[in-house]
Amino acid sequence: MDPLAPIRTTRNPKYPNRTFSSDDAGEAHSLKVEKVLFQGKSDYQDVIVFQSATYGKVLVLDGVIQLTERDECAYQEMITHLPLCSIPNPKKVLVIGGGDGGVLREVARHASVEQIDMCEIDKMVVDVSKQFFPNVAIGFEDPRVNLVIGDGVAFLKNAAEGSYDAVIVDSSDPIGPAKELFEKPFFQSVARALRPGGVVCTQAESLWLHIDIIEDIVSNCREIFKGSVNYAWTSVPTYPRHVSLPFNIQSHGVIGFMLCSTEGPDVDFKNPVNPIDDSSSKSNGPLKFYNAEIHSAAFCLPSFAKKVIESKAN
Amino acid sequence: MDPLAPIRTTRNPKYPNRTFSSDDAGEAHSLKVEKVLFQGKSDYQDVIVFQSATYGKVLVLDGVIQLTERDECAYQEMITHLPLCSIPNPKKVLVIGGGDGGVLREVARHASVEQIDMCEIDKMVVDVSKQFFPNVAIGFEDPRVNLVIGDGVAFLKNAAEGSYDAVIVDSSDPIGPAKELFEKPFFQSVARALRPGGVVCTQAESLWLHIDIIEDIVSNCREIFKGSVNYAWTSVPTYPRHVSLPFNIQSHGVIGFMLCSTEGPDVDFKNPVNPIDDSSSKSNGPLKFYNAEIHSAAFCLPSFAKKVIESKAN
Repeated sequence: MDPLAPIRTTRNPKYPNRTFSSDDAGEAHSLKVEKVLFQGKSDYQDVIVFQSATYGKVLVLDGVIQLTERDECAYQEMITHLPLCSIPNPKKVLVIGGGDGGVLREVARHASVEQIDMCEIDKMVVDVSKQFFPNVAIGFEDPRVNLVIGDGVAFLKNAAEGSYDAVIVDSSDPIGPAKELFEKPFFQSVARALRPGGVVCTQAESLWLHIDIIEDIVSNCREIFKGSVNYAWTSVPTYPRHVSLPFNIQSHGVIGFMLCSTEGPDVDFKNPVNPIDDSSSKSNGPLKFYNAEIHSAAFCLPSFAKKVIESKAN
Repeated sequence: MDPLAPIRTTRNPKYPNRTFSSDDAGEAHSLKVEKVLFQGKSDYQDVIVFQSATYGKVLVLDGVIQLTERDECAYQEMITHLPLCSIPNPKKVLVIGGGDGGVLREVARHASVEQIDMCEIDKMVVDVSKQFFPNVAIGFEDPRVNLVIGDGVAFLKNAAEGSYDAVIVDSSDPIGPAKELFEKPFFQSVARALRPGGVVCTQAESLWLHIDIIEDIVSNCREIFKGSVNYAWTSVPTYPRHVSLPFNIQSHGVIGFMLCSTEGPDVDFKNPVNPIDDSSSKSNGPLKFYNAEIHSAAFCLPSFAKKVIESKAN
């Protein structure tokens, strides 16, 4: 069987009692619920926090595992430091989504950063993270953070041209409500908001299951970002992370990222130029996952994916 | 929560009807069974083959997913080419376990190889693979293969000293019946059977969940193998792969490998010296996963694991 064959499964909105499963069609990844700690309904989604048997506390949005205390480090550190360690002295950073605060915690490790704008659509996610995930929400405590509750697409359209060194898009999946975050008009807004040689990092699915979607994203990025366009991936055990109607997208323990730069000073994403001084951010705890070697390794792709992606990217 | 905290779960011998789950305690990875194609009981284990909804045909031993048609390429290619591409002109190779034939298929890609000995304990696995997984069992058709049905530990004890360039141990997990395959006496037999500067590659668990077991394996290897001792890892979506009584070991989409060399010519596992000429093995199909970049990348470890492993290895 071809590892490239895409898998499409319909979503199951049921929340079983004993275990919390992110899918029931074809394949499932589930964690045993020990105790439900919070259950609410925001203007945008169902929000649940539960204590799991083996992964610590877990945040679930619309029935899908968003983060677990055990493995959140891999995603938050990689989506943040892959872009920020690839440019010298990032000063102004925009985060779209990421309402749990974990990306902010990671951006704050960079001493050169002077301003961190965040636009998150759902205030309940921020509030719940502050209440139940203090080691993640610690990112909000940094004095450089400006939090805006609102629509990230509109925020970017109104952002001053060339104003950011880096944009990090911590979004849900490209099929469903967040679809437009993976299309050309959105990427155009991002490119416009970035300075010449500025960088964007956006969550970009699993190589194992959605190479067709990734191929389209890479094509879109290639048209818009005239600097460098790259795909990276990493291991996050509890991903599948995002699900959107009408399709359930699964990641099977890996998640990918698109890393692009605008025309201007060259950015060589595979060879980071801006190492993090880990000792400068003691309040945020030590880095658990990211290091310079794993940064470069993240851009090495399996042959089946390399063929597809490198025909589209550079 | 510390990503290093080990997880221990007891095994559930039940096989649910609709989905095939490799665990029910704390976390589960399951594939929907479309049709059971084979069900048997060998002298060693329960053997099941089923057609899954999304991963093609699946081989299950004692209730645990062993391989799926979708992702077997990642494991077979990495466990084979990580060692064989790290030494020039491997000629004589021993495979312990690996009764499905996939590792043989990969070893056979190396034109320099003159003799491939395999010792597999369970003939039913070989027969079932030949019947249901022809693209995997194709490895048995290579005329260089000598298949011995028997105990790998005994086979190694009787092997001539210094006779192999490489030994590949495609075994089950270090807790349970295969325990001795991860202990010093076994590693001593392997080291004895290898020529000076010969290499061994053995399956070695998941960084995310069993860093404590990995630490012990690394310590054991460090004592026995006087050349180089390294840990590598890769992504395999359907792993957890092996389960042994009394513990269920899960891998969460990643699997690791120990790569060691005996005293003699230096082996730099991280920089492969023996590229595969893919065109020379057309009958086995093209490589799907392995390439020289992903070889080197496999040795880059997340910070939480690096600290533990590099304190034990070199």
